[in-house]
Amino acid sequence: MIATMAAEVQKAVLLLSGGLDSATAGAIARAAGYALHALSFDYGQRHRHELDAAARVAEALGVVEHRRVSFDLRVFGGSALTDEIEVPKHAASTVEDDIPVTYVPARNTIFLSFALGFAEVIDAGAIVIGVNALDYSGYPDCRPAFIEAFERLARLATKAGVEGRKIVVHAPLLHLNKAEIIRRGVKLGVDYGLTHSCYDPDGDGTPCGACDSCTLRAAGFREAGVEDPALR
Amino acid sequence: MIATMAAEVQKAVLLLSGGLDSATAGAIARAAGYALHALSFDYGQRHRHELDAAARVAEALGVVEHRRVSFDLRVFGGSALTDEIEVPKHAASTVEDDIPVTYVPARNTIFLSFALGFAEVIDAGAIVIGVNALDYSGYPDCRPAFIEAFERLARLATKAGVEGRKIVVHAPLLHLNKAEIIRRGVKLGVDYGLTHSCYDPDGDGTPCGACDSCTLRAAGFREAGVEDPALR
Repeated sequence: MIATMAAEVQKAVLLLSGGLDSATAGAIARAAGYALHALSFDYGQRHRHELDAAARVAEALGVVEHRRVSFDLRVFGGSALTDEIEVPKHAASTVEDDIPVTYVPARNTIFLSFALGFAEVIDAGAIVIGVNALDYSGYPDCRPAFIEAFERLARLATKAGVEGRKIVVHAPLLHLNKAEIIRRGVKLGVDYGLTHSCYDPDGDGTPCGACDSCTLRAAGFREAGVEDPALR
Repeated sequence: MIATMAAEVQKAVLLLSGGLDSATAGAIARAAGYALHALSFDYGQRHRHELDAAARVAEALGVVEHRRVSFDLRVFGGSALTDEIEVPKHAASTVEDDIPVTYVPARNTIFLSFALGFAEVIDAGAIVIGVNALDYSGYPDCRPAFIEAFERLARLATKAGVEGRKIVVHAPLLHLNKAEIIRRGVKLGVDYGLTHSCYDPDGDGTPCGACDSCTLRAAGFREAGVEDPALR
């Protein structure tokens, strides 16, 4: 999706969660020549250790700047990631239309909307998001049709779009599985020891090893034939 | 746009700013039979008196509930409404493609995204937004094509959409001018004395009378042949 080196250095807003996927998406965008402006969210998520991981990954990626927006999605409730609903263990959902309880309503729509505002203010030509349709097929807002619809919206929603400057949405992991993502990242020098994936870590950030996210991560490293440096 | 009485009471998320437009949009949706769940934002705007107005209007509309989401758009800067840029006086911009400095990047996209999350959690079938393409033609995110693109996105972004329950976006003021909006509202019993429009009020909330918003409001009341009760 990001095939060619940008002719001149273009700015991209990188949605950075501190997880494995967004770290890899950032490394791919950096390798494509983008100057990265990272954006993270503190939205009342259970897994706030992600935010510390996001700061570490941003530094490792050499981003131009890293901004953080705070809001509280708990005002709506509705997800095991922000609510008092229990995070499910040993039950990864990868079936189409079987939407897991860890799904946060409209989360990626909200994240992309803030990224769009940020992109417009700094005059960035791209937004980079590490969504992945294979491992998260249960999340509607991780699917290709959603990304395309948002890109279309971005053209109509912004001063930049109206004035003919297109803001593209790069989702370079969209069609990769976890093992392929890890292999790409390792080639690009991503230090996965800096990343955090667990939905339900201990107080000190130790992954539970049993939630969907831990299970997918472990399977990905196993299939890629790489040791997970976060578990060393 | 909301032509028929809903067959059974349907929930709608109402984006409520406390201004004249959203109060009228709410009254139209209520008259169409919707149970209203109001949503307001505290986003670091200069005109925070809007938030008090939103609470008064919500009560007058008899909403089921009124939730407020806080975030800080000043983290991006870029608009006279959230920034240190001066609010322009006596210079209403209504020219297509002449985008005013009071435009907040991606604001309506962000607002609609939160409304979408809220709609999904409470299982609402509609989002109501008081945008108006005539008086705000300078704002890309107040145009019909934008609203349509968001509705399309909503179908793809949500569990509800994936499961076949459509979330529609009602923008009942889209093609009305300010005077027509005021006439509709007066017929529906909206008390405009509760609403707040000024972009740059005094400390006690007194409208400046000179910003784009005050100017449009005054012209609307004049043209509608109605006295503005907020100025009594």
